[in-house]
Amino acid sequence: MPSVLRNLKLEIEYDGTNYCGWQIQNSRQSIVRSPQKKTIQETIEKSLQKILQEKIKLIASGRTDAGVHALAQVANFTTNSKIPPDKLQHALNSILPDDIVINKLKEAGTDFHSRFSARSKIYRYLVLSRSYPCVFLKNRVHFCPYPLNVELMRQEAGLLMGEHDFKAFCASGGASKSTIRTIKDISVSMSNYALYAARYPLVVIDIEANGFLYNMVRGIVGTLLDIGRGRLEKGHIKKMLRLRNRKLCGVTAPAKGLYLVKVKYY
Amino acid sequence: MPSVLRNLKLEIEYDGTNYCGWQIQNSRQSIVRSPQKKTIQETIEKSLQKILQEKIKLIASGRTDAGVHALAQVANFTTNSKIPPDKLQHALNSILPDDIVINKLKEAGTDFHSRFSARSKIYRYLVLSRSYPCVFLKNRVHFCPYPLNVELMRQEAGLLMGEHDFKAFCASGGASKSTIRTIKDISVSMSNYALYAARYPLVVIDIEANGFLYNMVRGIVGTLLDIGRGRLEKGHIKKMLRLRNRKLCGVTAPAKGLYLVKVKYY
Repeated sequence: MPSVLRNLKLEIEYDGTNYCGWQIQNSRQSIVRSPQKKTIQETIEKSLQKILQEKIKLIASGRTDAGVHALAQVANFTTNSKIPPDKLQHALNSILPDDIVINKLKEAGTDFHSRFSARSKIYRYLVLSRSYPCVFLKNRVHFCPYPLNVELMRQEAGLLMGEHDFKAFCASGGASKSTIRTIKDISVSMSNYALYAARYPLVVIDIEANGFLYNMVRGIVGTLLDIGRGRLEKGHIKKMLRLRNRKLCGVTAPAKGLYLVKVKYY
Repeated sequence: MPSVLRNLKLEIEYDGTNYCGWQIQNSRQSIVRSPQKKTIQETIEKSLQKILQEKIKLIASGRTDAGVHALAQVANFTTNSKIPPDKLQHALNSILPDDIVINKLKEAGTDFHSRFSARSKIYRYLVLSRSYPCVFLKNRVHFCPYPLNVELMRQEAGLLMGEHDFKAFCASGGASKSTIRTIKDISVSMSNYALYAARYPLVVIDIEANGFLYNMVRGIVGTLLDIGRGRLEKGHIKKMLRLRNRKLCGVTAPAKGLYLVKVKYY
């Protein structure tokens, strides 16, 4: 009996601090790569190959940059192996380094494709807004010691809702031809975040879109933070959407505060 | 005019992962010390000395072990400097490594002593109870992949309330002569812990006592976990309190799940 090709879907949590991203960005391959730093993709592929004893090619919902985290990155791969999903998940987690964990692993339909089947993605950005940092949130949030006008940030963020040309918010180096995307939801909120046994004042910025351009979330967040601290004026977002000029963008927010939270599928 | 000796009180948050504790334990000085690892105390003292240009001796509410964290360790020191507390706090935080943060720094009465003035201390222990670990809680919780009977743990923990001889729960190497302590409050609860954007099933064990013996919290937690997973039977805590025999103690729970949460003062 010939073996049947299975399509397996993974949900992956990772701390991106010690990786140069999900995968090397094609357009930036000329950048000298840190010899110590691996990609998330190759780390998981190697572990899968060790267990399954066959060549594995992982397809993810999209790339994440160096230092960016994921709560539920989605990836899939095909295999001839007959190993049950729960057994494979357990085997993978036992050999993966401790900054990558497989939260779920299950059988997917043969036509499921992590990138092409995706309907939208949700990213979260965390900003610690107080005068001194937090040791437990090191590499996990962007620390902003200056006061932020969160209400103004919320108002300006609202202008990004819907379909727009986000050219002014993205960095060069992306593979996309079109810079038009649809933001389905965006929220900026201040929360008194309970962690361990203390509370930390975090500004939480959530963005759901049908797709994201290269560095788009970090460009939006950086612009909102510059507005929130008074370095850019009210109305700046509108201007950026109109003029589509990257030079108007605020300082790109650092990778460490960014989380890929969810990928929604059709 | 002669300078006035001031007594300054610090509230310190630290991630204990990369330290060999608050201070080297006197009774364990024979143990070979990792040359890379510093103590929290010497790290803060050196920073203070750099700023104040005088010899500083920090007195803490008590020691914490290698790998143990603190949300609000309390320490005090005397100085001739006239630098305002908020300025000193800011200067300290700007030169301390990013796993130590001074949350508060203020003037204390001349008779305030971080250790002798303490009325009680609260420790928290965090256990991640699910089949796979969490990358963001690495070094921050004890990961237990086996099922736990939290209700039984809670019942057994309740027997520890009040004044008891805790000899069976502590490791040798402590400086205390008496092994009698009073547990003022103890709770074991299961919580669906919100972190970043996900939720993690944590067993939270809080213990407040007028004092703790060496490794006492980790001995209690280790015993409760062994009861929770069925390696020790119901009634074991009572037996330990009666027989006062350390050999009856469960596996000492690892340091990484332990937090000094609060020190209460008279």
